[in-house]
Amino acid sequence: MLNTYDWIKSRQSELNTRLCIGLDPVLDYLPTHLKSIEGFREFCIEIYRTTKDLCCCYKINFAFFECFGIEGTKILKELFEIIGNDRPIIADAKRNDIGHSSRFYAEAIFDYFKADAVTVNPYMGFDSVMPFLEYSDKLVFLLALTSNSGSKDFQRLMVDNSPIYEKIVSTSKGWSDKKRIGYVIGATHHKQLEDICQIVNQNMLLIPGVGAQGGDIERILQAIGNTPAIINVSRDIIFTSTELDYIDKLREKAIYYRNILKI
Amino acid sequence: MLNTYDWIKSRQSELNTRLCIGLDPVLDYLPTHLKSIEGFREFCIEIYRTTKDLCCCYKINFAFFECFGIEGTKILKELFEIIGNDRPIIADAKRNDIGHSSRFYAEAIFDYFKADAVTVNPYMGFDSVMPFLEYSDKLVFLLALTSNSGSKDFQRLMVDNSPIYEKIVSTSKGWSDKKRIGYVIGATHHKQLEDICQIVNQNMLLIPGVGAQGGDIERILQAIGNTPAIINVSRDIIFTSTELDYIDKLREKAIYYRNILKI
Repeated sequence: MLNTYDWIKSRQSELNTRLCIGLDPVLDYLPTHLKSIEGFREFCIEIYRTTKDLCCCYKINFAFFECFGIEGTKILKELFEIIGNDRPIIADAKRNDIGHSSRFYAEAIFDYFKADAVTVNPYMGFDSVMPFLEYSDKLVFLLALTSNSGSKDFQRLMVDNSPIYEKIVSTSKGWSDKKRIGYVIGATHHKQLEDICQIVNQNMLLIPGVGAQGGDIERILQAIGNTPAIINVSRDIIFTSTELDYIDKLREKAIYYRNILKI
Repeated sequence: MLNTYDWIKSRQSELNTRLCIGLDPVLDYLPTHLKSIEGFREFCIEIYRTTKDLCCCYKINFAFFECFGIEGTKILKELFEIIGNDRPIIADAKRNDIGHSSRFYAEAIFDYFKADAVTVNPYMGFDSVMPFLEYSDKLVFLLALTSNSGSKDFQRLMVDNSPIYEKIVSTSKGWSDKKRIGYVIGATHHKQLEDICQIVNQNMLLIPGVGAQGGDIERILQAIGNTPAIINVSRDIIFTSTELDYIDKLREKAIYYRNILKI
């Protein structure tokens, strides 16, 4: 079996797209006939069935499931089982803790849910990230420069003439092989993306923030050049329609993004 | 009903202790007769029953439950129900995401589990923390300087002559009332604890890292002075014995810590 890095790259070549679809389901935004926990489950499964030939991988954000507690965890587990063997899944869980505890988060993500990749917040440093890196065929995306407005509060403060997020990238790059460690850089930062690509070279980037968050696709594609990168679209694909035709509408939107996010 | 800040302070005065007991259960370290998921559940409930008159609050670390998936979530929910009305619980979940997603983590922690406080990783900035702060009677502990070795990698880098964790504290202090926002400072950093107490004044500190992680209690108590602070002990209390007498042994150890962690 391929490691996650090679699996994603091979799917990207095969489909000629960098598109990752983000599963960020919110009850209030679902099609009218699906506004229940059962509808929520059906909606998630339908997104996968409708788009599996259109994207190189899926990103599942745990926040939107955890708010339903036990029921949400059941749906999350079922989704990983349905999608998991077929397509790479990034567990967007932004976990972090001291090494002793982080190990159990890594078990949850990789052994229990059997995710292929994970997002990790690196603020707690090396020992907090290490338990995730010990899974040699998986890919760990560290948050570097996120797409939200709060990214200016701490991530861009300057340390010895470099912003903190650059320090995080240059330091953590040495922690593991390029195939095991990647970085989250928000699509809303074109200029910074270009600089980061010089540093990472062959580490993979996960770029969220296209669509609802306003990242400009042409400038992103130009900035990344040949750097391996996944571009995630969530809300702008999955919430295309609240009518019974939502499946057709979201497929149309996914085709649109597949085409413009070509390699 | 009291807000969490006042509830914890009033329990601290009543019991004359700063002791918080951390529920970090690990199957491998449990008493021999409890090494099963059912034993794991019983162990957690017994810790609470045995120590509820000895500590000002409990801290439950989600990592140790999430590794069991659906079963772990069920036990977590049950624990919050059993302990929750009786004693303040800090959900040690270290959650974080962009504002839109973070809101659903806040719902999971405060509406679903009904925790009284939470730990949040502040690296993503203001909008990522705000959804937690909107619960006006809860307490949000931001990770500042953690107890692990990795805390030197990024947290202590210097920005304009101050370490990053100090910047995080001084910036975020203005985000909400002192009763809603607290800070995690590891017990392994006595000197820095003293400096932070000057900045926070009346915000509450959550201090982990005593016992197994080696924080020196006398120096910590001296450093914090009158700053409101909870001192957490996990492993050194809960894993006192693997024999049938584990309840007596852990109660003895909890009494020891209750006494030395006096106000």
